[in-house]
Amino acid sequence: MKKLKEIGVAVLGYGTVGAGVVETLLKNGDLLAERLGFRMVLKGVADVDVTTDRGVALDPSLLTTDGSALLSREDVDVVVELIGGTGVAKTFILQALEKGKPVVTANKKLLAEYGGELHRVADEHHTEILFEAAVGGGIPIIKALREGLCANHIESIYGILNGTCNYILTRMEEEKLPFEEVLLAAQNAGYAEAEPSLDIDGYDTAHKAAVLASLAYGQPIPLEKVTVRGIRGMSSLDIDYASEMEYRIKLLAILRGGADDIEVSVQPTLVAHNHPLAAVSGVFNAVQVQGDIVGTTLYYGRGAGRAATASAVVADMADAGLNLLAGGRRRDLSGVSAAKILPLREPGAVVARYYLRFSMLDHPGVLARVASVLGGHGIGIDSVIQKERAENMAYVPVIMVTDQAKEKDIADALRDIADMQNVTDQETVRYRIEDFK
Amino acid sequence: MKKLKEIGVAVLGYGTVGAGVVETLLKNGDLLAERLGFRMVLKGVADVDVTTDRGVALDPSLLTTDGSALLSREDVDVVVELIGGTGVAKTFILQALEKGKPVVTANKKLLAEYGGELHRVADEHHTEILFEAAVGGGIPIIKALREGLCANHIESIYGILNGTCNYILTRMEEEKLPFEEVLLAAQNAGYAEAEPSLDIDGYDTAHKAAVLASLAYGQPIPLEKVTVRGIRGMSSLDIDYASEMEYRIKLLAILRGGADDIEVSVQPTLVAHNHPLAAVSGVFNAVQVQGDIVGTTLYYGRGAGRAATASAVVADMADAGLNLLAGGRRRDLSGVSAAKILPLREPGAVVARYYLRFSMLDHPGVLARVASVLGGHGIGIDSVIQKERAENMAYVPVIMVTDQAKEKDIADALRDIADMQNVTDQETVRYRIEDFK
Repeated sequence: MKKLKEIGVAVLGYGTVGAGVVETLLKNGDLLAERLGFRMVLKGVADVDVTTDRGVALDPSLLTTDGSALLSREDVDVVVELIGGTGVAKTFILQALEKGKPVVTANKKLLAEYGGELHRVADEHHTEILFEAAVGGGIPIIKALREGLCANHIESIYGILNGTCNYILTRMEEEKLPFEEVLLAAQNAGYAEAEPSLDIDGYDTAHKAAVLASLAYGQPIPLEKVTVRGIRGMSSLDIDYASEMEYRIKLLAILRGGADDIEVSVQPTLVAHNHPLAAVSGVFNAVQVQGDIVGTTLYYGRGAGRAATASAVVADMADAGLNLLAGGRRRDLSGVSAAKILPLREPGAVVARYYLRFSMLDHPGVLARVASVLGGHGIGIDSVIQKERAENMAYVPVIMVTDQAKEKDIADALRDIADMQNVTDQETVRYRIEDFK
Repeated sequence: MKKLKEIGVAVLGYGTVGAGVVETLLKNGDLLAERLGFRMVLKGVADVDVTTDRGVALDPSLLTTDGSALLSREDVDVVVELIGGTGVAKTFILQALEKGKPVVTANKKLLAEYGGELHRVADEHHTEILFEAAVGGGIPIIKALREGLCANHIESIYGILNGTCNYILTRMEEEKLPFEEVLLAAQNAGYAEAEPSLDIDGYDTAHKAAVLASLAYGQPIPLEKVTVRGIRGMSSLDIDYASEMEYRIKLLAILRGGADDIEVSVQPTLVAHNHPLAAVSGVFNAVQVQGDIVGTTLYYGRGAGRAATASAVVADMADAGLNLLAGGRRRDLSGVSAAKILPLREPGAVVARYYLRFSMLDHPGVLARVASVLGGHGIGIDSVIQKERAENMAYVPVIMVTDQAKEKDIADALRDIADMQNVTDQETVRYRIEDFK
């Protein structure tokens, strides 16, 4: 029996995902060796905390607090960064790349903010940075986009990319619970962080959208120019009204490539209830990718969690190892290489249908005045639902679904309506409706 | 500007998919070169028919009837086989592999029947055979299974893999049409062949199941031992009754890996209407893959057609080219390499719930006698629907849903029931119900 080649691996960060990776290597190491033709050998695990029990049968002598020394060891071929954030994680990744060692990371924030720099350093040292686990947890969406669909211009990507938000929206809809109550339950169940802003304000989704966009369009995305709206404070009313009209509200990352610009945004969006994305519930993620050759494809799975994320990390480690054994990285280009850099589409220029919920004062003629302002801005109205005013409520809920309209026109019209006397003194709720066309 | 490297490509077979591949290279060749760092250069297209217009702006001087000469040319690095079948296609593939040239094919029949031999020859000549387009059309499911999920033991795969069957079942359900009428319409629309057996009798799905199984379990699958049932002659009655019980009938490829054996089968199966696979309609395909680490993932897209299939073929050509430029194939193992070969599970030993439709004679006590036979074979009954006997019909339709039962016990019970006097002289309809557990 011939002796298998070995690839030495260092894991930096022994948190949830780090422990999942170690566990996966222990559990399925033989299977991996059989499939890959080489063995991944864990040379060490670094963390500031090497005493907490992670529930994994790891040889304690492999633990170290010195990540820099570990990644520099000669017998370490592949470096896995699972620390997160943009501080020491970035330092370690740069150190590894500068030594010509491939890096596997799940760090979407770092990639979204410093992807260009990291890829440049990887290029300079003829090595690579792999990041399947950064988007969609265990779903091999990065590989699908970068490799499986490489023959396609990517026309659009729509993604449910944050399990916490999708869990909250699903429970709000199914159990008719208010946002705050579900958020608290999610925090208690460990599905949401004590400081939930990264998730519920849409930033985590935006980081992932930026990573997908950089792959789909071959250019870095300036995050500060991306429209990002989260689900914080969403009202159950809107979930109910949307449901009456056979829509579900999902926090979507929306990417659309045009001839002259790219649209990237994150926002709660109404999705027809019979669309596959509407069926994605709980902590699951899904990504719909439309290519000019392949048409519509969709990828679904667990978007987070120890095991699912570990599955993606280990797949990248396998690729990194195979590439090393074949003499180096296989794909030169790391998604920041478009011949022509396109600008982001101005948010105001984006065209879509909109769901508007007005809280109108109960005066005669108010509805007509609102409709007339919308008409004056060239906004057609597709349907109107006026609800009865509930007892002891000062406002009448009126839902309008618009025709296709420019976001700027909608915003201007809503500003004009807010300025009118005796119409409403409440903020009008506005969500995009996505027709996937 | 540095000159891009080139990879010479020969396309064998200029039918629907062949023309789609040529069209994709013409349309997106620049994008591919930008993404891959090399250019795929079409050196020739071979077909017995070089005169029919394929609607593609191919330089006519690239056409040839001599496939063997074309694939042997020194400037041809990658050979794409899109002829189909197990005759000349196999000869050409072996010729190419023996010259050490990687082969890209969409030929599931050839892979299912001769995969072991082809992979062996590829191994001997240190080259590879790539077959993303053989299963699921444009969906990158082979890459997901072979690379993206490589860290997982594959617990199960459930696939809707034949667009023709799914189109027929969808129209039968949505428009309440009989099988024969929809088949005829599908033939007229070009969705089904004039000789439809390969599709509607389940063989095409079985070929694809064998390809998936060989990847998931690393061993060839003896097709003759696989239970294959198609949808030919399916009655609208069963689609209606299933629908009443909130199920849809889908032609599923079912793969389940156990510790001691592997279950592989193809059969019309009842799927709960709220399961993602139930939502797959028309010519679309979907594959649900359950891994021990990643949990449940699902992949969805167009399972056939010129463009979608071409997307997968070109992705494989890209991989083959990248591998060649890196010195050769990257993954040694082509899915026929499990350390321990497992037997196929005996069909009779498979445990599932079943939908049974009896056409009972309208005599007192018949239902009780049938239930008692089932009970005698240890088969529990979950629910019973007895329909009124339609006027001028001799039979009363009775639908029974069983508890989990061995297939052999079901078959034995149905045989005993058929042998009874005054119960039924019609064949009992039987479909598996899949609970995805």
